[in-house]
Amino acid sequence: MLSVRSLLLVLFASCCLRSQPLSIMPLPAHVEFATGRLRIDSSFTVRLSGYSEPRLTRATARLLSRLEKQTGLTLALPGTEPAAAATLAISCEHAGKAVQTLGEDESYRLEITPSGARLSASQPLGALRGIETILQLVGPGPEGFALPALTMDDHPRFPWRGLSYDVSRHFMPVDQIKRTLDGMAAVKLNVLHLHLSDNQGFRVESKVFPKLQQLGSGGLFYTQLQIRDIVSYAQDRGIRVVPEIDLPGHATGILVAYPELATSPAPREIDHLYGVLDPVLDPTKPAIYVFLDRLIGEMAALFPDAFFHIGGDEVNGHLWRESASITAFKQSHHLLPTPQDRDANSALQTMFNSRLEPILAKHRKRMEGWDEILTPSVPKNILIQSWRGPKSLAEAARLGYQGILSSGYYLDLVYPASDHYLVDPLDHEAGTLSPEEQKRILGGEAAMWSEWVTPETVDSRVWPRAAVIAERLWSPREIRDVPDMYRRMYLLSGKLEWLGLTHRSWQSPMLQRLAGPHDIEPLKILAEAAIPVRGYDRERFGPYTTSSPFNRLIDAVPPESETALRLSALVTQARQTRNWELVRAQLTLWSQNDPRLAPLYKDNELLSGVDLLSRNTSSLAAIGLASIHAIESGTRQNSDWKSRNLSKIKNLQEPSAGLLPAFSDVITVLVNAAAD
Amino acid sequence: MLSVRSLLLVLFASCCLRSQPLSIMPLPAHVEFATGRLRIDSSFTVRLSGYSEPRLTRATARLLSRLEKQTGLTLALPGTEPAAAATLAISCEHAGKAVQTLGEDESYRLEITPSGARLSASQPLGALRGIETILQLVGPGPEGFALPALTMDDHPRFPWRGLSYDVSRHFMPVDQIKRTLDGMAAVKLNVLHLHLSDNQGFRVESKVFPKLQQLGSGGLFYTQLQIRDIVSYAQDRGIRVVPEIDLPGHATGILVAYPELATSPAPREIDHLYGVLDPVLDPTKPAIYVFLDRLIGEMAALFPDAFFHIGGDEVNGHLWRESASITAFKQSHHLLPTPQDRDANSALQTMFNSRLEPILAKHRKRMEGWDEILTPSVPKNILIQSWRGPKSLAEAARLGYQGILSSGYYLDLVYPASDHYLVDPLDHEAGTLSPEEQKRILGGEAAMWSEWVTPETVDSRVWPRAAVIAERLWSPREIRDVPDMYRRMYLLSGKLEWLGLTHRSWQSPMLQRLAGPHDIEPLKILAEAAIPVRGYDRERFGPYTTSSPFNRLIDAVPPESETALRLSALVTQARQTRNWELVRAQLTLWSQNDPRLAPLYKDNELLSGVDLLSRNTSSLAAIGLASIHAIESGTRQNSDWKSRNLSKIKNLQEPSAGLLPAFSDVITVLVNAAAD
Repeated sequence: MLSVRSLLLVLFASCCLRSQPLSIMPLPAHVEFATGRLRIDSSFTVRLSGYSEPRLTRATARLLSRLEKQTGLTLALPGTEPAAAATLAISCEHAGKAVQTLGEDESYRLEITPSGARLSASQPLGALRGIETILQLVGPGPEGFALPALTMDDHPRFPWRGLSYDVSRHFMPVDQIKRTLDGMAAVKLNVLHLHLSDNQGFRVESKVFPKLQQLGSGGLFYTQLQIRDIVSYAQDRGIRVVPEIDLPGHATGILVAYPELATSPAPREIDHLYGVLDPVLDPTKPAIYVFLDRLIGEMAALFPDAFFHIGGDEVNGHLWRESASITAFKQSHHLLPTPQDRDANSALQTMFNSRLEPILAKHRKRMEGWDEILTPSVPKNILIQSWRGPKSLAEAARLGYQGILSSGYYLDLVYPASDHYLVDPLDHEAGTLSPEEQKRILGGEAAMWSEWVTPETVDSRVWPRAAVIAERLWSPREIRDVPDMYRRMYLLSGKLEWLGLTHRSWQSPMLQRLAGPHDIEPLKILAEAAIPVRGYDRERFGPYTTSSPFNRLIDAVPPESETALRLSALVTQARQTRNWELVRAQLTLWSQNDPRLAPLYKDNELLSGVDLLSRNTSSLAAIGLASIHAIESGTRQNSDWKSRNLSKIKNLQEPSAGLLPAFSDVITVLVNAAAD
Repeated sequence: MLSVRSLLLVLFASCCLRSQPLSIMPLPAHVEFATGRLRIDSSFTVRLSGYSEPRLTRATARLLSRLEKQTGLTLALPGTEPAAAATLAISCEHAGKAVQTLGEDESYRLEITPSGARLSASQPLGALRGIETILQLVGPGPEGFALPALTMDDHPRFPWRGLSYDVSRHFMPVDQIKRTLDGMAAVKLNVLHLHLSDNQGFRVESKVFPKLQQLGSGGLFYTQLQIRDIVSYAQDRGIRVVPEIDLPGHATGILVAYPELATSPAPREIDHLYGVLDPVLDPTKPAIYVFLDRLIGEMAALFPDAFFHIGGDEVNGHLWRESASITAFKQSHHLLPTPQDRDANSALQTMFNSRLEPILAKHRKRMEGWDEILTPSVPKNILIQSWRGPKSLAEAARLGYQGILSSGYYLDLVYPASDHYLVDPLDHEAGTLSPEEQKRILGGEAAMWSEWVTPETVDSRVWPRAAVIAERLWSPREIRDVPDMYRRMYLLSGKLEWLGLTHRSWQSPMLQRLAGPHDIEPLKILAEAAIPVRGYDRERFGPYTTSSPFNRLIDAVPPESETALRLSALVTQARQTRNWELVRAQLTLWSQNDPRLAPLYKDNELLSGVDLLSRNTSSLAAIGLASIHAIESGTRQNSDWKSRNLSKIKNLQEPSAGLLPAFSDVITVLVNAAAD
């Protein structure tokens, strides 16, 4: 994990450096700057030429309305003037595929001069990507809004750049999906992988097996009309939608509706608990394959993408092991124990997958699944999504399988953006693959599991961090300047608000809820100082179920503290300028905050545990203030003082209410500086 | 204007005082507190008894979904358990009117004990009002969310509590209207007055005269279906919708469509400029009355309310004076000049109104209009909306006319909430009226004119200040504690976000737009320190037209600075505790901000003028810091120092970019304290 300490001053300065003048995300493959700017005012016009289709016309209309939104200008509707006269001319050479395919050309060329801009692409996907670049490039200048003069040649590094989105643990409404697609398009992600079925619910209407949504969804599912709407919304934005029906485990949503498909005992209701649970299909029953043939046939028609995700992960095998009929089946079918597969469950799952694959093929789908589906006899045309890690992915590639990386990209675990940013699908074991083998690694998917989020909070977990994974998958490999990434990520974060994403605006109403009749300000000041515990540590602050409220401070705090990052930059600056005033002001707000916050957490069950966090935050800030005092007065503190304070810092870092102070690295820097 | 200085510490403390434990707005007529709390958790249920109707059922469902939103809990759907078993029992005695009428009973009684809550009302309107009270009362406590035990008897002081909403100067989409209605319902306002027609556009579809929307709206109008939707949405919330078609002036929207109705010359297009313009109907043409009979007939069917607003304001009379045919008409009809009406235009308008009134009566509408329609011969059943002031309103009442007050309630002029709060319809001249006459003053309307706002910014001008006018019109007259009003207004402001109002969330995306590629933080810090110029001073920073962008810092800053108010409270506290740390921290953020902000306003036309505001803000803060230094060191500054600094403060208060520092009152307090 990258420490806040190492995130340098450049956060606020580098945008002005000639060497890094671009503030967009993801960064393009190639750019050359020219002099001057193209003014964007109310006379702005856009014109399509060359190949055209309704998707491009709609994209152009969207470009205009988004430009209005982000500038506040009123623009004319798309007109009919010749391309040469338009401010922006967009030209496409030919049509793309009717159904967007893996590896379709997404490249584009953008030429901006003070007299006009030209976006050219061989096909519509490239134009869509270029439009997003243009929208990110527009900004205020000496004569109003403008685009910088430049020539850009851009194309993605990986063809598969996705987001796995779990709508089973917590159902996400259609509007939520749509704004997620808008955010994805803005950062050039091109696959939305919908995790539609799990133990907590089956989330898509089946007309063939209506009990799935009637009994398996708790009333929360997408109608087929809504799915078509989502798919077409995605297609308009150059995004493929890959459905996942998790099989044969993670399948309670299916099994409560059709208990006859279950290994006994069948579950009676959808699960409210999380984890690797027992319910599992019984792959020895022939009826299963009839059912799946019909269900997959129906879903295949609904989701036009060439891939179909069958999950395949985390079968714990308890029920299979305990079932006499399954044991008998294994014996009669020569599914025999091995040292790696002591109860032959893996062999049984392989058999299940090998019967599933032809069903998918019959419905013209390529099978995709998690690491577990990769067993020796599986056909080579399947795609592996690796949650286990680069080693597993590299092995698959070596064996001839295509794969994508999700390990290292789990957004729900609230790791810092820098952690995800530095995970490259071709690092580690993949680095030892031949070029041919490396080509089998198609990209990756950020993953948003929804055990601990609701529609109210999910955006704050996805954005803006998904954007840095998008950059990893789009931009050249060499681009890995972490401070510049943070600078651009936070700029983008602000711009994503124009799309209606709620990753920033969600906080204030949540804090209001917690503050009751009190002024919200001290709670806001604490929230800026804190981060949630990382990874699966959150479980220690549960237990959580699907009906748990997610309405505590931990749910109202973003994964990273922008304020702590700014403080770090201010400290770096202060050490150069010897002006400590702003650092002192920020630390004072925190050091003096606990008495202000006390009336809020007193007698407030929702803020239980926040008292300790608040006191620790104030104490940490006080250590920082004492350090500054020493630095300014020129009194060098002795090593005893230093070790005493470093040890205090460590103790104050204890999580409480699922949160910890975000700025202890900065305080450590100050203590060290005071004693040096 | 009330100075920030006088807003005391109570802002953050008074919520805990026994004497003022209520944090809701508007405050109720009568409340008695009991001991204990009623827990609100996921087992919460609500049950209707007595008279019921679909509106109440929907209100109950809305209560549940809003409770979910504000608590984050998942609640059960309305069930069928007996009322006695429900957490909240709502009972109504009988139906209200099919179409809500002026003066209908809105009273309710609320009894909350630790074992349950009972809301009783004679009719549905009272239940709707009580539900809003309950939602505001829910808050976090020692055992989770709860309602305080109490008995409340509540009813409004005035029967007409409205919001005039101008959708002509800038059209406001249906969603905007709906969330405005939600906000109005939350603070118990009961009339939405839609200013549908003006020089800048005619905003409602006419099937009888379709040219009105075709030529008079620029494409921005409500369909009849949308109007019906708005009216029914309002009715569900206990809000009447009164339409206004402004006649005979402010009528370009009509006259571009039907130039034959105009006094020559007829306007050729809807106006983009604002102000009192020339275009006016020609009341001497008989065709006018045929037209109005049909148009008003159509609109009367669309808007079921008993009142119809015909505007009548600001006829400048230029064209009437210049028209030979009108001059001839005046002579032939004995419309003669008087000392008060030198060109007999007022007499002509009176004649017009007197012909309009029977048309309205025929369509079963009571005529409402601005002060100007009140002339001696006008029938007594008209209603006067007074923009001229209490004197005009009191005169009307004395003459036997009913009226409502809007003067003093113009939200678009961005005066402080306290100014509006202290305007009482029964003050001044109205105080000298007999009780009988006073009863003719039915209440008032906050007014939101839309010359300087767009859908993006309008919520920030309406909310939360409309709530204090709502309290003035609902709560007992004696309730006028300004600091407590501010405390409750800001609490409510946070809660209004749960309804989707954008009066807080609008700011961050607007600042992002202005900040370009830079960190937004210094701009946010400046925005917290500034307020827009008051009243019509804004015109000095124009000129503005309907196509002007409203995308500058002035549009991204709320009418009042909550930060300045907090600073004022912190100063009061510091003078008692002698701990100046938090005051110093805030002033340091401002005093050090200009160098941080300089890269943002440099070469940024959108921030032109902000440089001066920024420097003045930093200089003001520096004076505050010097004062604190003097106060802390116990050095009493001499009178020369004092007058020098007070004069500096005055100079630094100069508006720039339409903004001025919001905290100069606080700095004045500090300078005085340092010299005392």
